[in-house]
Amino acid sequence: MSENSQISPKMQQLLDLAAELDDLNHIMALLGWDQQVKMPPGGAEERGMQLAALGRIIHEKFVTDEVGQLIADLEAEVGDLNAETDQARSVKVSKKAYEKQAKVPLALLMETIKTTAMAHEAWVKAKSHSDFSVFQPYLEKIVDLRKQYAELFKPYDHIYDPLLDDFEPGMKTADVKEIFEKLRPQQVELLQQIAEKEPPDDAFIKQPFNEAHQELFGRHVITRFGYDWNRGRLDIAPHPFTTEFGLGDVRITTRYLKEDAGSALFSTMHEAGHAMYGQGVPEKYKRHPLSGSASLAIHESQSRLWENIIGRSKEFWTHFYPSFQMLFPAYLGNVSMMDFYRGINKVEPSFIRVEADEATYNLHIMLRLEIEIGLMEGTMEVGDLPAIWNSRMADYLGVTPPDDARGVLQDIHWSGGMIGYFPTYALGNLASVQLWDKLMADHPNVPDEIAQGKFDTVLGWMREHVHQYGAKYEPQEIMLKATGSKITPEPYMAYLRKKYMEVYDL
Amino acid sequence: MSENSQISPKMQQLLDLAAELDDLNHIMALLGWDQQVKMPPGGAEERGMQLAALGRIIHEKFVTDEVGQLIADLEAEVGDLNAETDQARSVKVSKKAYEKQAKVPLALLMETIKTTAMAHEAWVKAKSHSDFSVFQPYLEKIVDLRKQYAELFKPYDHIYDPLLDDFEPGMKTADVKEIFEKLRPQQVELLQQIAEKEPPDDAFIKQPFNEAHQELFGRHVITRFGYDWNRGRLDIAPHPFTTEFGLGDVRITTRYLKEDAGSALFSTMHEAGHAMYGQGVPEKYKRHPLSGSASLAIHESQSRLWENIIGRSKEFWTHFYPSFQMLFPAYLGNVSMMDFYRGINKVEPSFIRVEADEATYNLHIMLRLEIEIGLMEGTMEVGDLPAIWNSRMADYLGVTPPDDARGVLQDIHWSGGMIGYFPTYALGNLASVQLWDKLMADHPNVPDEIAQGKFDTVLGWMREHVHQYGAKYEPQEIMLKATGSKITPEPYMAYLRKKYMEVYDL
Repeated sequence: MSENSQISPKMQQLLDLAAELDDLNHIMALLGWDQQVKMPPGGAEERGMQLAALGRIIHEKFVTDEVGQLIADLEAEVGDLNAETDQARSVKVSKKAYEKQAKVPLALLMETIKTTAMAHEAWVKAKSHSDFSVFQPYLEKIVDLRKQYAELFKPYDHIYDPLLDDFEPGMKTADVKEIFEKLRPQQVELLQQIAEKEPPDDAFIKQPFNEAHQELFGRHVITRFGYDWNRGRLDIAPHPFTTEFGLGDVRITTRYLKEDAGSALFSTMHEAGHAMYGQGVPEKYKRHPLSGSASLAIHESQSRLWENIIGRSKEFWTHFYPSFQMLFPAYLGNVSMMDFYRGINKVEPSFIRVEADEATYNLHIMLRLEIEIGLMEGTMEVGDLPAIWNSRMADYLGVTPPDDARGVLQDIHWSGGMIGYFPTYALGNLASVQLWDKLMADHPNVPDEIAQGKFDTVLGWMREHVHQYGAKYEPQEIMLKATGSKITPEPYMAYLRKKYMEVYDL
Repeated sequence: MSENSQISPKMQQLLDLAAELDDLNHIMALLGWDQQVKMPPGGAEERGMQLAALGRIIHEKFVTDEVGQLIADLEAEVGDLNAETDQARSVKVSKKAYEKQAKVPLALLMETIKTTAMAHEAWVKAKSHSDFSVFQPYLEKIVDLRKQYAELFKPYDHIYDPLLDDFEPGMKTADVKEIFEKLRPQQVELLQQIAEKEPPDDAFIKQPFNEAHQELFGRHVITRFGYDWNRGRLDIAPHPFTTEFGLGDVRITTRYLKEDAGSALFSTMHEAGHAMYGQGVPEKYKRHPLSGSASLAIHESQSRLWENIIGRSKEFWTHFYPSFQMLFPAYLGNVSMMDFYRGINKVEPSFIRVEADEATYNLHIMLRLEIEIGLMEGTMEVGDLPAIWNSRMADYLGVTPPDDARGVLQDIHWSGGMIGYFPTYALGNLASVQLWDKLMADHPNVPDEIAQGKFDTVLGWMREHVHQYGAKYEPQEIMLKATGSKITPEPYMAYLRKKYMEVYDL
């Protein structure tokens, strides 16, 4: 709470409740981390039961008439919920969460938790056999459950709005469409310009890289970024992710591909960007209504900044390339830094989103958004997704996945019921450049620092302008405060054009 | 439930409650596993809060007037609680658990959970610096909390009884003392006989063994034993242990010592013995009042059987020694199987319980029992423990630990509040031989099978006579049913004498 404010008895009740719910939600996160990272297959059924038991308890503790009354009383007590005090914002955030969760019948919540626990196993199996039919019945069920969920929030402008709002508070489907409609022609035009040029060589990065050395380098880089190992760890998971069990335990995962050293490296930097956001939330928000983050787009602005704007920059590799070369002399001994830099920034329409370059990435997202909207509107059927996926991949990116594992089955999100999540990736790309531009204006020396392997200014600026607020502000408030503008495509396109002008000599 | 019995509505309520409590207790176990195996240091404080939050919920769900009434009603409904039906035993087990837990004030439970979470970190630190003073205040607090707990069960024959009963249902302090009093002189006499003989050489096992090869061999052995990897995994932890998150997920841990290949190997076999018990409980007891095991002594009978009776036998190494030799040709190439067998059965009073040989192991336990009883009776002070420990080690085993890390700080148990646990290790040793003798009588061919690397008969017999009952019977009932006798020292001493007669040519 802000320094001199008194804590009323009712406010203390809210803080106590938030602390307990934080504990329980962090236990849920551990169950999920373990499920993806460590759990043997035989544990799946009982894990689903455990998630359901705890999910039910969390729901029952929060969605009670007493809590509803407490929040109403506190709203009267605090007055303006948009006031900039921690107390007012704690009530605002709690009120919004309460109003959303109170609409959800317990039975729907339980069915969703159980279905997604089973769906995760089905998705793993479907992906490993590249057999969509294994996953299809689960996805059909999930789409049905998400429709039921969205319909609880009628009237809405669009059935996709309630889903989107869970990940990106305050954002509407119409807003995203508007941004994407501005963005797409510019991305496509840039891609056409690039396609006319000779691509840089990147064969050197597609060789059988030693896994232990990949890991060593990845750990080295994120240590220098500022990832705090005392409050984190790095494990292997099929789908890289970040999760937190409190301010003191923010974990990341990656996976090493033998034939592509870039994959694990950039995903490690990406997840470290997420994790440093989690680790940067101040101690005063520990077990607090304002713990957590502003939104997934703001989260993604952090991960993409470290992965792309920094991790794929000339300055970064000026410092780190000699070390990377040292680890892989057979493959990189004769590759110059500039050739390496151009290679890792090669634009090439590809199948896998998480490995897409910066020029094509957002097109992967637009495809997913259209499918999600189609599923929710009922204009697309789950059974048709492999065909729809492949034909849109051909339209947007000019490539057709050789199998569903590298197509419609590639992402974990839908198996977890996370429909409405994907757009935040593209929004995060846009936000990352807006934040970067402002950081550059404040500290023009940052590129020189990065070329010396120093990241204090970058991390310090993000701590000050983003991390320190936890969940206090909505994402667009954060953007306005930090950059003077809401999320908008222009800076991102300017960044891409400038970058590829150099890499591709446009 | 047994095949044809009807489930009454009240019985169904009990089953539903047990299922939910099972889920929540398995989540507690995951929090603990992660704390010991994966959690970064920064996570300790919030983990303590999470354990407390969940511990409170479990307590509040179980200890209610409604549950008390439900159990009373069911008691009337089933009649004889000692009847051999699953229903009667479910009520009996639930009634006992309820009566114990209902005595414990929530505040005491909460303080115990929070104290032990902090004490675990303190113990890790104290052990790594070999500084008892870091752990002392936590242990004092724990002893005080355990006294408060025991006193809730007045009148008792002995203040240690309620603690012991938590780990070994139905066993009294006087019973253990009686068994130990018979056992000690015989163990001491055997030790003296052995001391007069030339010890076998075991220098070959104290060399810098490759860790990856140690792990390969350990995994190979327990796979052959019958450990089910689809429902388990093996990780590294400072103190090896087994834990379960359901029938489908029973995990073990070990730790590799470079200079002693026996340490990890025997501890891996030991934990696999525990885990195969957990994996052997039948599907019908999944999320059930009778899930789990009879007691820790019965559990230990399984682990010690696989570790010692089998894992240190001539027959076992007849089959496995060639493979072990192959992995470490530089150290073992010129060591014969019989020399190896004698070496791993060398008797040598040592500091560390978990690495003690079969002839000295129980003396480590007796020392701990005396200290625990002294602490609970108030005739010993925590601050004096390092001195008491070292002087009794000198008395019993003729050795003095060089530091507290290898003395009073070596075991994790007290940091977790587990006072009353240690005696079950010695009782488990005794029970393991009683079960083994009966197995031999039923299947005299088992040694030949083991010499061929076959363990189906052994595991099958344990499944039938021990595992299949879950928590249905008390430990002494299991022993009576399986062997015709309660836990008794004679078979164990006969086993030791026979073994060392050969190894030491007594």
